[in-house]
Parts: sequence; structure tokens; C-alpha cells
Amino acid sequence: MTVDKALAFAQSHRSQWLDQLRELVRIPTVSTASEHAADMARGAKWIADHLGKLGFSTEIAPTSGHPVVLAEWVGAGKSAPTLLVYGHYDVQPPDPVEEWQSPPFEPTIRGENLFARGASDMKGQLVAHLSAVEAMQSAGPLPVNIRYLVEGEEEIGSPNMQSFIEGNRDRLRCDVVLNLDSMILRPDLPSIVYGLRGLAYFELRVYGPSHDLHSGQFGGAIHNPAQALCELLAGMHDNDGRVTLPGFYDKVRALEPEEREALAQLPTKDEEVQNLTGAPRMWGEKGYTLVERIGARPTLEVNGLLSGFTGEGSKTVLPSKAMAKISMRLVPDQTPEEVHAQLLEYLREMVPPTVRCEVSTLAGGSAAIVRRNTAEMRAAVRALTETFGRSPVFTREGGSVHVVSVMQALLGRESILMGFGLPDDNLHAPNEKLHLPNFYRGIECYIRFAYALVS
Amino acid sequence: MTVDKALAFAQSHRSQWLDQLRELVRIPTVSTASEHAADMARGAKWIADHLGKLGFSTEIAPTSGHPVVLAEWVGAGKSAPTLLVYGHYDVQPPDPVEEWQSPPFEPTIRGENLFARGASDMKGQLVAHLSAVEAMQSAGPLPVNIRYLVEGEEEIGSPNMQSFIEGNRDRLRCDVVLNLDSMILRPDLPSIVYGLRGLAYFELRVYGPSHDLHSGQFGGAIHNPAQALCELLAGMHDNDGRVTLPGFYDKVRALEPEEREALAQLPTKDEEVQNLTGAPRMWGEKGYTLVERIGARPTLEVNGLLSGFTGEGSKTVLPSKAMAKISMRLVPDQTPEEVHAQLLEYLREMVPPTVRCEVSTLAGGSAAIVRRNTAEMRAAVRALTETFGRSPVFTREGGSVHVVSVMQALLGRESILMGFGLPDDNLHAPNEKLHLPNFYRGIECYIRFAYALVS
Repeated sequence: MTVDKALAFAQSHRSQWLDQLRELVRIPTVSTASEHAADMARGAKWIADHLGKLGFSTEIAPTSGHPVVLAEWVGAGKSAPTLLVYGHYDVQPPDPVEEWQSPPFEPTIRGENLFARGASDMKGQLVAHLSAVEAMQSAGPLPVNIRYLVEGEEEIGSPNMQSFIEGNRDRLRCDVVLNLDSMILRPDLPSIVYGLRGLAYFELRVYGPSHDLHSGQFGGAIHNPAQALCELLAGMHDNDGRVTLPGFYDKVRALEPEEREALAQLPTKDEEVQNLTGAPRMWGEKGYTLVERIGARPTLEVNGLLSGFTGEGSKTVLPSKAMAKISMRLVPDQTPEEVHAQLLEYLREMVPPTVRCEVSTLAGGSAAIVRRNTAEMRAAVRALTETFGRSPVFTREGGSVHVVSVMQALLGRESILMGFGLPDDNLHAPNEKLHLPNFYRGIECYIRFAYALVS
Repeated sequence: MTVDKALAFAQSHRSQWLDQLRELVRIPTVSTASEHAADMARGAKWIADHLGKLGFSTEIAPTSGHPVVLAEWVGAGKSAPTLLVYGHYDVQPPDPVEEWQSPPFEPTIRGENLFARGASDMKGQLVAHLSAVEAMQSAGPLPVNIRYLVEGEEEIGSPNMQSFIEGNRDRLRCDVVLNLDSMILRPDLPSIVYGLRGLAYFELRVYGPSHDLHSGQFGGAIHNPAQALCELLAGMHDNDGRVTLPGFYDKVRALEPEEREALAQLPTKDEEVQNLTGAPRMWGEKGYTLVERIGARPTLEVNGLLSGFTGEGSKTVLPSKAMAKISMRLVPDQTPEEVHAQLLEYLREMVPPTVRCEVSTLAGGSAAIVRRNTAEMRAAVRALTETFGRSPVFTREGGSVHVVSVMQALLGRESILMGFGLPDDNLHAPNEKLHLPNFYRGIECYIRFAYALVS
């Protein structure tokens, strides 16, 4: 059978797939840092060139930010379904760089893992799918038409995806969306993400005096902006771990008893997450399990703090300003716009007249939920079951993949979220890694999924 | 008269004094930054060389930190009083450098001011006294014996002063201590500081997970250390602006009605400090005036905050740790050791089991109060009155000069605090400056003070 031929090819060419991945993770495609603009262009070109060699017609399409790689092969004809594959070639910044055991952009194998920024999130998933295509081509023509949309701004909240998809609806027409930016629960436990949280990301700046002051000369007369910022941030949670922004929970869709029961079956437990993270103890919103708190409840996090003197030793300064990066993970039916308004309302109520406050929006995207009973979902279940030897469980994921809700709205297609990252891959953290056995299983699973769509 | 000759010489050599000051502020003697160790040595040598040329015997005495410059001239004989002049040659870091209008170590004159780090705090005061000595020498032998102690660690809390003075009591014997590290209220309002606050400076670190996490993947399950730090810091003040560390006010000496009345006569008002600082509004401990809150009441300030991602754009990180620099200004009879214990007790009560906490002590020193009815104080009043044409007022200062309490304890001498900085000199802040007319008046005042001690 064709599928077996493709699988055999995939298995016998593993070192080639790994070499390709190594090449791609060496390019430091950090989308948030302007000094990496040239690397971003190199990253986009690498993917376009690679798809060109596989016989796809490709385009590096500009946006007002980083370019999008578009590619298509429609040789399967009009009767075959068209698969739209979504991925991103940008990565998170490697900071704090000093905590990496090997340089973040020098892929290094230790044990069964490849360590590099972007290895799991998500160049590994992207190269796995490119490898699956090459393996299928070795066995005959692809069973489905395939389009690729690979963006360069996912890690900064996909600010241009909405307008880009809106302006390119025709070129993105498809029957099934496969989103590679996802993970499974364990190497021996396949899973499909059917829910994703949204994101609303802000920078909050508190201003006091017009310049830094001597803390002895003026301490006691001036409201310290760093203290005021801490007071504002501390007030954003109550003692039950609930977010206090006015109206924050009004639009949160309640969990049905049936869904709570299903989520309770998942193996993720406090102890496991404690081991994984090294946190002294678990924490969170009262009345919800860990799985619910991560996947189905909204949160507010402080992502960064900066004020005054932070160098070696001491400086007796009363700082003139203080900054926090904060972000909320959203669930249906919250929207980033409403949460922004709630934040402003909170600040309107809470900012004392002794300081001044500014907010900028850095990123935003809505949450998404995908139906579990569609034909393409059954194909995904079959591919995972055949690859892993057991049927997958359904999970809700705490992270955000903005494009899923955008594609749902603009292309009328829900996404199959199928990627092979693992919870301990250190995403967005030092020592990000990709579990290589999972990488190879991923290639096989993508092959099976394509054939399953037409059988 | 000799004093008039000396004053005339001081007036006719102003450009020379200014050139010497320019030379000294060009040396970036930032004591807290290890990369400036060589500059610190250069700074000490500049002062020793200068005093050597003035006929002083000098020594650059090592400490376990930065060296101390010692110098003496005892040609006035045993019947004349001996003046011990205290100063420091180190300066605060220039951060944030980008907010300086001219480079911090390139002295630049704009209007009546010389802008440079250390110009007012306190190389300007030191050069003023050196100039006064040179002017007096031009008129005849100095009327008093003079010793100098110029340290290099005042801006980091004088960690070695106690043991240094203890080990050099004999060489520091004196009748009068003149401490140059001080300021007056206005160019037309001379003042003498008779009270100084103490300092206790700490770094507080909160640890959560063992590494940075993805805020989507784990947000809702983990107590964010940046949030926990904010909660701890926000809890350190109550709604009346009082510090909540247990026992913090127990040892605070209450203000007598008579002293409150005298302080109420000082011209410093809310409006003036608001203009000076640009703060939207004044703030502080309920029940006390601005002058009392700055000079006679203890405070707690956040001097720095750092956690997570603070660069351009957004990074959805749940940080593994968060750091704050905090410091308390102390008044009699608080001690840094007791305040340290109070901080630890507060943390013992307040740190939740979801995070871990560490504290290091970075600096500490007690407060000091000086009697206003001694012979040397009368000499200071006379020198100021003759120089400024009006008698000085007595003030309590919010800053800390650790050495004052140390000298009181070890040498049995109270200090005359006489320096010519101004409240708007931007001490410890960008665009520090020295008011040049005040610099020249300072030289004349130091001359008059020396002669007043023997007349």
C-alpha cells in the first residue's frame, strides 16, 4: 500500500529529517526583537525554498510586520480534499540566555532530545510535516491538495494574521485546517487539543516624579511608583486566586458537568505538574481542578517587572517610574477588547491621585473551541491511534493559538490541532527541547492523517 | 586681616577651583560597580596628590573594599584645635544614562550650574574645602590643624567605616568634625543639618518554579513569583502610609512639641517639593507634615524591581523568580539590625507556601542627631551668617550619612554638617548639578569657619 511505502521511507530517512530541523533551528527567528529582522527573512526563505524543492508553488508574502510563507500543491485535483497546514517560523526570545546548558541556536542532542529554541515550538512540528510530504511523494502523488500558511508573528500574538487571512481568503480556501502548533500529553498518551485559551497582553506603566529622586531626600513625601505598581498588581487577584478586574468572569462560559467529568479523567495531576515545574506547591482559582484552571478558566499573569536600580549592589533611588508586562489567558466567550476595557476600568477605580498610569496593548486573540465529532477529527483520531497504538484523549490547552479563532471566523473552518510537543519541552523557557522519538512518530502520524482524509 | 586676604584670594581664583572640580568629576568613581575599581583608585590618588601639593602628609589606606584617603597637617601646633574633615570620593551610578542631557562624567556648564555625576554629592563640597585650604595658605599658616578622612564607599553604605575608624582612632583624634556631605535649603537660605536618617538596604528575592514557564501552559496552576513579590511589597504599607513590619515604630523617638514647632517654621512646603519633583501629588504617613515625614519619620522604599521579560514587545513567560531592592530610612533610636529582624518576621508571617523567599543585606547605618548649642556649632552659625548675610535655620535631613553616628560612637565627636548642595541638585538622579554661586560661597564659608574656631 502507498501509505506503507511512505511510512517506510519516513523511517529510513530519519537522519535527513533531523538534519533539516537542525538547519532551521540555527536561524534565530526571534520575532519580537527588531535586531533579528534579517534572520526572520532568512527563516521565511528557508521554508519557501524547501517547499519549492518539493514541487510547491511558493510566495513570501509581505505584511506590515514579518512576512508570511504561502505555498500550494493542488495536483490531487478538484475531487480531492484540500488541506490547509498552518505553522509559524518565529520563536520566543532565548532570555535568560545564561540559563541554557547549550547555546539556544546551536541544536544539541542530549539523550533522546534535541535542545534548541524553537525545536518544539514549533520548527520541529513544521519540519515533521515537510518530511511527511516528502515521504508521501516518494510513494506516489499526494492523496490531498495541500496549502501552507507559515507566519512569522505567532509568538508576538499574530497581529497581522486577521487582515492577512481576510485579504487572502481565496488562496486559503480549504476543506480541512491542520494546525501543527500543538502538543500531546505524554510520549505514550496521544491527545487532541479541542480548546485553546485566548490572550490579552498589556504593558502597564506607572509614573510618579518626573525624574529619579534620592530616596533619603524625598522618601516619605512621594508615592513610590514601584510601590504603587505593586499595589495595583497585588490587587488584581483576591484571596481565592480569582481575578478582580470588574466583570472579568461575566462572559466566561461555565463548564458543563459532562465536560468536567471528561477532564477529570485526564492523567495530569498536581504532583506531576509540581515535578515538571519545580514550584513549591500548586496554586490557583479556588473551586477548580488543576486541569480546569489551566485549560478552561481565565488567568492573569505578571510576565515582567522593571523599575529603578536592578544592578549589582545598592542605589538609594526613589524611581520615577515602574513597568509591568501583564497578560490574561482568556476562555470562551471573553474577548481581548472587553478585557482591555475591564483593565482600564480597574485602573480608573484603583490608581491613586499620587501617581499616573499608562496602558498599551501588545497582543490579543480570542479563545477557541473545536467540535469533536467531525469527519476530519475522526481521521485525526485514526492517525493517532494507529501511530501510538492507543486512542487519543481530548484536552483543553492553556496556551493560545490566535489563528485558530481567526480561521474559524474568516474561512469557516475549525482547526485540527495536531502537533507533537510535550509538556516538559520547556516552551518559552531556557533549554527548550524536542523529544526525537515523538518527532519521528509525528512524521508518521501526519502521513497517516493525509491518507485517512481520503479513505 | 588674614581672613580677608584668604577670602580675596578665593574670589580671584574661582576659575582655578572650577578647573580642579572639573578634573575630579571626570573620574567615574562609581563605588557599587566592580568594573569601576580602577577609576576608584584613580579618584583616591587624585585627592591624595592634591593634598600632598598643599603640604599635607597623605596616605591611601586600603580597606577590604575601596581605599580611604587620610591626610594631615598639624603645623598649627598643640594649642590650636584640630579639625577632622570628612568627605567621600565615590558617587552613585549614573543610570539611567539615557536621561542625562550631557554625559554624566563630562562636566558641562549650563546657566549657573555645573552638570556631572558627583558634582553636588559630593566632589563639589570636597573641592570647595580643598580650595578654602589653599586660599588660607596664601594668607599665612592655617589657623587650625586639619586632618582629612575621605572614603570611597559612602554611596554603598560605608560598610568599612566602622572598622576603619575603630582601627585608626589615634590618627583621627580631633576637637571638631566637619562633615562636608550636606546641603542648605536655598541659595539665599543657609541651614545646618542637625538630624540624619539611618539606612537599612536589602535585596528581596522570591522564587517559584525552578525555571521560567510558558504562561499559557501553566498559568492558573502556579503562584507567579512576580505577583507574589508584588503582594509582599504592597503589604508593607497600610492605607495611612505607615510601614507594617512588626515593631517598626516601637523604637522611633517621638517628636517633642517644641521641635515640631521649630520644624513648622521651615519654608519647605508641599507645593515646593511638588514643583521640584514633578510628582502628581504629595504622599506619606498620616499625621505628620512633609518636613517631619522626610526628616524625622522612618520610611520604606522600593528602590528596584526586576522579573521576567522586560524587553521590547511581549513574551508570554511565567517567570521563575522576582527581585526587589528595598530600603528603610531610620530615625533615632531604630537600628538596622532590628529592622532586618522585623523584615524577616514580616516575611515569616506573609510568604505563602507557594513560593520561597531570600533576603540579603546590602547596607546599613544608624540615624544621628547633633546638639545645637556647642562652641563649634556657634562657629558654623557665624561663618554661614557672614557668608550669606542672614543666620541659618536648623533642619533634619532625610538622607543618611552613616559615618556621623559611627564617629559619634568611636571618636566621641558630634559632626558639624556643612555642605552647600541644594534640594534641586538631582542627587542620585540623572542630570545631577552643582550651583556654582553656592560652590564659591561654600569656599568662603569654609574659610570663615576655620578662623571662627580660633577667634
